[in-house]
Amino acid sequence: MILKKDDIEQLEQGFRRADTLQNILETKEYTLNYIRSGQYQKAHQTSARYDKGISEFEQVGFEEWYHPPCYAPFVQDSVVKIAMKYEESISIPLNGTILIIGSIMHVDIDASLVGNDGYVALSEADILISQGLDAYFVSKAIGRLPYAKPSI
Amino acid sequence: MILKKDDIEQLEQGFRRADTLQNILETKEYTLNYIRSGQYQKAHQTSARYDKGISEFEQVGFEEWYHPPCYAPFVQDSVVKIAMKYEESISIPLNGTILIIGSIMHVDIDASLVGNDGYVALSEADILISQGLDAYFVSKAIGRLPYAKPSI
Repeated sequence: MILKKDDIEQLEQGFRRADTLQNILETKEYTLNYIRSGQYQKAHQTSARYDKGISEFEQVGFEEWYHPPCYAPFVQDSVVKIAMKYEESISIPLNGTILIIGSIMHVDIDASLVGNDGYVALSEADILISQGLDAYFVSKAIGRLPYAKPSI
Repeated sequence: MILKKDDIEQLEQGFRRADTLQNILETKEYTLNYIRSGQYQKAHQTSARYDKGISEFEQVGFEEWYHPPCYAPFVQDSVVKIAMKYEESISIPLNGTILIIGSIMHVDIDASLVGNDGYVALSEADILISQGLDAYFVSKAIGRLPYAKPSI
């Protein structure tokens, strides 16, 4: 996860993105939620700069869901819910960003989406994908290929 | 760009992925090429571990294309060609990877794909996207949304 230096500078100003970073640093936890394409407007709206202490889930209409011992909330309707443990942050002065590195504590996903080889069929679950800050898409599968060898 | 520690350890063994890293460190340049979905098999095949000194472009059937002063080759048929200058690498011991950070020197793209606001319509150009190491997709646009504000 990459955050802008901006977010750190806003820690004292009470903006939501900074709140996100502060929450991670304080609780050492965060969640990743893969949602369906139909909810792209709600997902986008979570990027608004709500005041510190305001739940963006509540504001945009996402139901919160909890999976103890993870303290951070998940999006109830999400297809894939990943509980992350904060491990370290690496400052990248060159472009004023911070790389947040976490480890996976727990994954909640319908078993029908997981193949025998561990492949997760995100495309079949109509998962939302994005480009840049404002463009949203769904993906359509072309195919999977075997491990590439020089002889082929 | 993230490379595995593996790639560094293989520098002395002459495998192709290590060759890629070595090329970047030696020439301080690399290219990013966005190709159309129809070429996903060729793209996948470039991941094979060809011997050091063998051109994977030639092996898989990609035509090379050059744009001086960039020394590194581009894929001729690619829709977007980005010439990158190597800036720094950050070692991430936690997961044995190396984060390669570069700056953009030059972008070659058909002007018809670039909107007035700078948005690049990659989806309309049938650009290939991938998940993991072996699954390939195209994207279908849902929509773009305006800058999110708390009041909405």
